[in-house]
Amino acid sequence: MLTLARTALSPLNKKIESYGGVLSTDVVDAFFEKNQQRFLDELFEFLRIPSVSTDPENAGDVRRCAEWLIAHLKGIGLKTVELHETPGHPIVYAEHLTQDDAPTILIYGHYDVQPPDPLELWTTPPFEPQVRDGKIFARGATDDKGQLFCHVKGLEAWLATEGDLPVNIKLLIEGEEEVGSVNLDHWIEANQERLACDAVVISDSSMFGPGKPSITYGLRGLAYLEMTVEGPDHDLHSGLFGGAIPNPINELARIIAKLHDAQGRVAIPGFYDDVIELTDEERADFAALPFDESGFLKESGAAGLKGEAGFTTLERIWARPTLDCNGIWGGFTGVGAKTVLPSKAHAKFSCRLVPGQDPDRIAELAEDYVRELVDPALRVSVRPHHGGKPVLTERDAPTVQAALRALSRVWGTDAVFTRGGGSIPVVATFSEILNVPTVLMGLGLSDDRLHSPDEKFDVENFYAGVRASAYLMHEAGQPAE
Amino acid sequence: MLTLARTALSPLNKKIESYGGVLSTDVVDAFFEKNQQRFLDELFEFLRIPSVSTDPENAGDVRRCAEWLIAHLKGIGLKTVELHETPGHPIVYAEHLTQDDAPTILIYGHYDVQPPDPLELWTTPPFEPQVRDGKIFARGATDDKGQLFCHVKGLEAWLATEGDLPVNIKLLIEGEEEVGSVNLDHWIEANQERLACDAVVISDSSMFGPGKPSITYGLRGLAYLEMTVEGPDHDLHSGLFGGAIPNPINELARIIAKLHDAQGRVAIPGFYDDVIELTDEERADFAALPFDESGFLKESGAAGLKGEAGFTTLERIWARPTLDCNGIWGGFTGVGAKTVLPSKAHAKFSCRLVPGQDPDRIAELAEDYVRELVDPALRVSVRPHHGGKPVLTERDAPTVQAALRALSRVWGTDAVFTRGGGSIPVVATFSEILNVPTVLMGLGLSDDRLHSPDEKFDVENFYAGVRASAYLMHEAGQPAE
Repeated sequence: MLTLARTALSPLNKKIESYGGVLSTDVVDAFFEKNQQRFLDELFEFLRIPSVSTDPENAGDVRRCAEWLIAHLKGIGLKTVELHETPGHPIVYAEHLTQDDAPTILIYGHYDVQPPDPLELWTTPPFEPQVRDGKIFARGATDDKGQLFCHVKGLEAWLATEGDLPVNIKLLIEGEEEVGSVNLDHWIEANQERLACDAVVISDSSMFGPGKPSITYGLRGLAYLEMTVEGPDHDLHSGLFGGAIPNPINELARIIAKLHDAQGRVAIPGFYDDVIELTDEERADFAALPFDESGFLKESGAAGLKGEAGFTTLERIWARPTLDCNGIWGGFTGVGAKTVLPSKAHAKFSCRLVPGQDPDRIAELAEDYVRELVDPALRVSVRPHHGGKPVLTERDAPTVQAALRALSRVWGTDAVFTRGGGSIPVVATFSEILNVPTVLMGLGLSDDRLHSPDEKFDVENFYAGVRASAYLMHEAGQPAE
Repeated sequence: MLTLARTALSPLNKKIESYGGVLSTDVVDAFFEKNQQRFLDELFEFLRIPSVSTDPENAGDVRRCAEWLIAHLKGIGLKTVELHETPGHPIVYAEHLTQDDAPTILIYGHYDVQPPDPLELWTTPPFEPQVRDGKIFARGATDDKGQLFCHVKGLEAWLATEGDLPVNIKLLIEGEEEVGSVNLDHWIEANQERLACDAVVISDSSMFGPGKPSITYGLRGLAYLEMTVEGPDHDLHSGLFGGAIPNPINELARIIAKLHDAQGRVAIPGFYDDVIELTDEERADFAALPFDESGFLKESGAAGLKGEAGFTTLERIWARPTLDCNGIWGGFTGVGAKTVLPSKAHAKFSCRLVPGQDPDRIAELAEDYVRELVDPALRVSVRPHHGGKPVLTERDAPTVQAALRALSRVWGTDAVFTRGGGSIPVVATFSEILNVPTVLMGLGLSDDRLHSPDEKFDVENFYAGVRASAYLMHEAGQPAE
């Protein structure tokens, strides 16, 4: 079953009127204009701390980064700022609750970064941020220190100019996102009452394109399986047995070939039963996006595109379920030739799932189908690895609409709706544990080189991000029409 | 094109009559009876030399073994006995040519042995031969010192009792069979005129079963290929690209699945075009063999048998071509899950070929078919590894018939015709370079544990083998009817 996130907003507090609609954002804008150099200097301080979560040698730096953030959040005037220990790196948690009847928004981000290696490929050192050609170069510039800091400065703008926020805010900033958020789910579950909110906002991804702000309202889920086909109980000589004893590699290949039909659809019976199909409106919206298909193909380095018949490339990667083999192995794989009829063959394969599909159900259907396909002269076993639920946020959820308006105002162009083909596990966690929608408001660009040398964040996007965060709070705090 | 070995025997020399048909073999038998303990003692001497060809530490032992053999062959009275250097271990070559018009038989064998490891699994040390329960235990007992020595003692029996041989004999004994006969082909090619003969006899395999002597008259050949399917030019994130970019593992599996049809036949167009089909007589002969199918299945450790529709298990492994995947790999094969859409996928596959099929032609057909199958959005490349031609010796070739009569007389039961599913490269070499048939007269049993600890040779088979060799020379020397 898909956990379709739905929002039940509290009736809006009339007090919000005192913050003065458009007028307030003008004040915020003025404050922003005056302080932009300081914002950049502070971001540089944040970026200079090498909070590489995966390297034990940086454990002290990671903690120092959390402490820097604590001090900074206290400095801008947030009421409650706490460091929470975990078995790994600490979680920074902050709250600023004053508008009793206003919506409560939980902002999620992470202060840890990827390792900077290979160091020799950086133009300037990864932890000595520098602006060149209007771009901030540093590890974490966009992933996620820079994007997270947009919200921190957006909060500061309100607190410094109005002395309060137009909405209730909770901040959850972890230090283990780059190592799989291993302690986050447990912490969220243990603190779910405290984390109660109307929506989650995350800026840890990319806009649709330069000057093209977007909200990602759907993510694919995942069912990941491993299958083993067993024939003989030991490797055999292909001359002495070949032709009379079934070959597990050939059988594995036969099974995999039967996982798709000739139209590129997944052939597992029942696979599409629960799929929430795209609406005509969504398909029209996707079609209207200036998607660079030839650039996408070039980026993949493949000789051609290929997928489910009847769907466009964007539909295929954003909103259609798939089945891809991720790995295969068996028999002799060394250099040269060995005439072995192997005992076993293995494959890892995974399905990207779309809203409506449940990973456990899909894993069951896949296993049933594979067991039915296998020749009785061989044995097959299937075991699930991890799964993840797909996510669909209602496009008309109030916080989604507020974000859309905020982005459109800042960039002076209509923000668009996109989906994502991958999974962001924390979004599924928020959906499942807190039962709220997540607004994915990416402020980066697809060429930001996250996880690579010369990671960057456009200065323009940083400043726009600060304003977008401030406007989002304003828009979310407006009474519903 | 198959090199179908054919024999053109010289007219038989009338002088052979002087050796006296059945009478002569009685004399040989009497000599044999008197000397069997000495034969065993001498075999033990031969077995005590650790002529392990693969281990550089044993290089001196391998040479000592060749020299021991030279001395021994001179001792039994062979006219010409020579040691030939090669870039590796020496070849022992001997000739005894006297019967101008009698057939010439080349006996091939090898004096090197497999390494004895793991030593701790031997009941008694591998180079201290011992008889227990009527079996000679030692490394090389059956492979091939024991079987080769049957022919040496068979020759001695004639020379000692009659002072001559009923046929012309050439002996080619190499010291590198267990390391792939790396220098043999070159030596045979360089000495092909000297090696001219009417037939080759090899005892380096097994009888059909205990008390069931046999001649192997056919071997399968081999075409071995490696195929690579390439999709994207680097590994992709399956979330960002999956569904729109073709997956090379899925495509490889689809291609492999199309290499067979639903009846278990190889689906490569033209694959069966040159197959020399089994005759009704051959099929009847195979069917009459006491083949233990359930024992064969048990030995394989598979859950069931499976193969080309319309053929028995023996026909499938001896006389039908096959296609088996030998290895497959691609993508993420470590522990756990990685959602990669891999760049490449590879498979090694090989066809066992039957008489009539040519390895190069089959490799071409396979490559053409695979190229035709591949989706244009992916690339496929195919490269051949080694190949080997199938061999078919005519069942009515005089030396084959002579061997059949010899074996039948010794064991007191009709010797049977079998084929082999694997390849014996030297047989193809003799067929191609010398253009003569090879008689595979295995004297071992399938439970002799060659290449394993506690290798053995039944004393009964050793003695029967000596007589079979002596009788074979007698039968081959008889005038044609």
